[in-house]
Amino acid sequence: MSTAPPEYAALAGRMAELSDLGRIHALLFWDQNTMMPPRGAAARADHSSTLELISHGKLTDPEVGRLLDALEPWAGDQDPDSDEVRLLAAVRRDHEKAVRVPAELAAQMSHAAALGQQAWQEARAASDFGRFRDALSRHIELRHRYVQCFEGAEHPYDVLLDDFEPGLTTAELRPLFATLRDALVDLVAATAGSPAQSRNHGAFSGPFEVDHQRRAVMDVIEAVGFDADGWRLDPAPHPFAQSLGPTDVRITTRYDLHDFGVAHFSALHEFGHGLYEAGIAPELARSPLGAPVSLGMHESQSRLWENVIGRSRPFCGWVLPRLREALGPALGSIDADGLYRAVNSVQRSLIRVDADETTYNLHIILRFELELALLEGTVEVDDLPAAWNEGMQRLLGVDVPDDAQGVLQDVHWGAGLIGYFPTYTLGNLIAAQLWSRALADVPDLEAQIARGEPGALREWLRDRIHRHGRKFPPRELLERVTGDSLRPEPFLEYLRAKLADAAVTPA
Amino acid sequence: MSTAPPEYAALAGRMAELSDLGRIHALLFWDQNTMMPPRGAAARADHSSTLELISHGKLTDPEVGRLLDALEPWAGDQDPDSDEVRLLAAVRRDHEKAVRVPAELAAQMSHAAALGQQAWQEARAASDFGRFRDALSRHIELRHRYVQCFEGAEHPYDVLLDDFEPGLTTAELRPLFATLRDALVDLVAATAGSPAQSRNHGAFSGPFEVDHQRRAVMDVIEAVGFDADGWRLDPAPHPFAQSLGPTDVRITTRYDLHDFGVAHFSALHEFGHGLYEAGIAPELARSPLGAPVSLGMHESQSRLWENVIGRSRPFCGWVLPRLREALGPALGSIDADGLYRAVNSVQRSLIRVDADETTYNLHIILRFELELALLEGTVEVDDLPAAWNEGMQRLLGVDVPDDAQGVLQDVHWGAGLIGYFPTYTLGNLIAAQLWSRALADVPDLEAQIARGEPGALREWLRDRIHRHGRKFPPRELLERVTGDSLRPEPFLEYLRAKLADAAVTPA
Repeated sequence: MSTAPPEYAALAGRMAELSDLGRIHALLFWDQNTMMPPRGAAARADHSSTLELISHGKLTDPEVGRLLDALEPWAGDQDPDSDEVRLLAAVRRDHEKAVRVPAELAAQMSHAAALGQQAWQEARAASDFGRFRDALSRHIELRHRYVQCFEGAEHPYDVLLDDFEPGLTTAELRPLFATLRDALVDLVAATAGSPAQSRNHGAFSGPFEVDHQRRAVMDVIEAVGFDADGWRLDPAPHPFAQSLGPTDVRITTRYDLHDFGVAHFSALHEFGHGLYEAGIAPELARSPLGAPVSLGMHESQSRLWENVIGRSRPFCGWVLPRLREALGPALGSIDADGLYRAVNSVQRSLIRVDADETTYNLHIILRFELELALLEGTVEVDDLPAAWNEGMQRLLGVDVPDDAQGVLQDVHWGAGLIGYFPTYTLGNLIAAQLWSRALADVPDLEAQIARGEPGALREWLRDRIHRHGRKFPPRELLERVTGDSLRPEPFLEYLRAKLADAAVTPA
Repeated sequence: MSTAPPEYAALAGRMAELSDLGRIHALLFWDQNTMMPPRGAAARADHSSTLELISHGKLTDPEVGRLLDALEPWAGDQDPDSDEVRLLAAVRRDHEKAVRVPAELAAQMSHAAALGQQAWQEARAASDFGRFRDALSRHIELRHRYVQCFEGAEHPYDVLLDDFEPGLTTAELRPLFATLRDALVDLVAATAGSPAQSRNHGAFSGPFEVDHQRRAVMDVIEAVGFDADGWRLDPAPHPFAQSLGPTDVRITTRYDLHDFGVAHFSALHEFGHGLYEAGIAPELARSPLGAPVSLGMHESQSRLWENVIGRSRPFCGWVLPRLREALGPALGSIDADGLYRAVNSVQRSLIRVDADETTYNLHIILRFELELALLEGTVEVDDLPAAWNEGMQRLLGVDVPDDAQGVLQDVHWGAGLIGYFPTYTLGNLIAAQLWSRALADVPDLEAQIARGEPGALREWLRDRIHRHGRKFPPRELLERVTGDSLRPEPFLEYLRAKLADAAVTPA
């Protein structure tokens, strides 16, 4: 590679600052959701929006466009897979997306997000969709204006999707989700137990003291790769992961006295996210490439640890004695096989975040269908609760008793996040595709999991996915790692095999 | 007041963003010293310097100068005590100070601060001043260049002082500290107990479990005004207070198993700092006036709660039964009078941060004398340890066994902070002046303290000092509140009276 012209260092320097601002924003978010005293919220909103304004200014600065243009001839002569060429592509993408959106619209969207979350909170507390309808209408209206900033999209939803899963289109997603939906509806019919049965067959119903739960969680995640010198674990009402750099990873979990499964699987989930952040190559960390490449790929990492590994037979066998030591007799007399069956039980349920691995994607597919319908205008905002309730009956066979347990259950639409939900299911699909590849690449993988030694898998994940950050677009990355394109079949095969192995049949 | 011209809103908006960035910096600092995993430090340094760069750019923006000039005629017609006129004065001061320092010099100072702290750390660990001398020489050299950026100062030290205590001069400080020094040397001679005696006469030597200490500390500070909805208390190796806004105040303390006095008095100290931050008027909070006015005034608030109140007879009487409840039998059979005498005992000692209220200021005066001598060139850097040891013998009558317990004990010089130390003693002097005024203004004050009801005092402090933030320069504020100028006599009278009351005589 020829020595980069001085414009490259100038651009990279600007982008390093932008990366720092993003990390600082992550700290504001983490602190707000773990540490901040309740009355700190108003000032925090000011701090966040000032930071956002400054970041937006740095990204849309015309000098960035000038530097990109000046570097184009040089980049044309370089290895197209070099960090430098890929960095320029990422900056061009980010810059051009940002400059297309007028500052006034961006401000309106950010304002509507704050108001919408508040309206949603009140509406959910009152279980009354009517109190949320205006905020949602406003979000839809603003999304239409946002979509118009981008030319050439085949479907308006493509523009929204692209913010969370770069490059994915509605035309690809629709048949993929249709296949998945039909297969899952059948699978649920064949495996779902009674809705009266408690979650995880009561294996984790305790009650367990929070101290004991925390000890159990720490013991498990430290064994699989949590490093106390570079990570933190804190409680949070809605668990999440954030990273202030590859060696400052913050994960959270939630403790439910009567369901240790919440803390256990949330911690494994967030550990998967954290491991991705921790695995970014140090030389990319303070650059536009120094972040996970998409929400779907990010979610594939969390689902891999939570579900593919965390609910596997070898892992259940390894983890049970450790849990017993930390949790004591409250765990009861369950054996590894019983645990394996319990954590893979299937149940039709109302709430997405409580859903099991099998029914979960039907919750997502409903939201995807409704988002498309709202955007296409085939469902009006006022008809959304009815469409929701109909969909829950059709896909999951459950009656929705009220809006709070129905259409108002998630914060996303309150914040104006439309096009986000599909990435959860993408995560499940990609996790299965990666797992199938890892099984082929890493000899003896399941035996290593059974011994609680996932070091070789961690290295494989780091080498194939984590270290690259945003260097390769998500679809290209998937194909580089698996040789395959995004497909639902590996997930369905994985799930069918596991449900058969665990002998999951209706109770 | 006539309606402000549009330039006012433009300037205030820019300054509100600058205030937000300052608060965010406070969060970075707080997190780094309480929560951050050790390996997060390198990335954190990048985040901090990016934030600093952006803040500096915003403050030195020529548009700020233009707006200030444009507003001058309007301001001339306004009430000179209005928030607006005072805000313009504060912005002009900050802007003009910032633009005088070339970016290159500012960067060198910031770089030297990082290197200097590291050199200091290594030197202290090895107890070898020689390893720190180059870093300190560099700091002195850079300070000389910094001083040259400002014309018209009577003494170079004035320029450094002004960064911590706006408006204070060496010519004022020298005689004031000389009076204080002579009086304190005599007072220590009359009251100091044996150096072999343990601190606080062993009243707090426990051992006390950290859980019990924390419970005791929380019980005390909640009673005096800590509000869990808007404050936090966390452990930190070097206790400090930070504020992210008047309703997001973070204080810290340190737990020593064998000395509950550390946690108790640190918490009261930081509570005093926190109360100042919490008392800033909401309408000033997001502005250049929304911060404590000087380090000396800030320290007066912490010393007031730690020493003037925390070591008073009424407070000791109130606090003892509470401590007994939280700490249990490890507190022994001491009575309130014994506690009062114990926490006011006087001892010659080596370490500033461990010093009692009486000897403390002699530690500061030594540092002030040495800083002046270094800057005037009457002491060379290489001669500093000898000068230190001579000063400790002259002022405190102690032999310094090594550099770690002598000239290398504090981080300040490592970070290039010269002119900072005097503000600790200013805090003690001002606290005594304020207390004498409060006793006159608040009827029944000591009885309220004895009942653990300092609400009227809190209101008095808020009304007279806290709410104004930086509106009035520190000396003006002191005169407005007390009708008096900065003087050492009230502190000396307060201290003599207490030592006599507590019957403190050499053991």
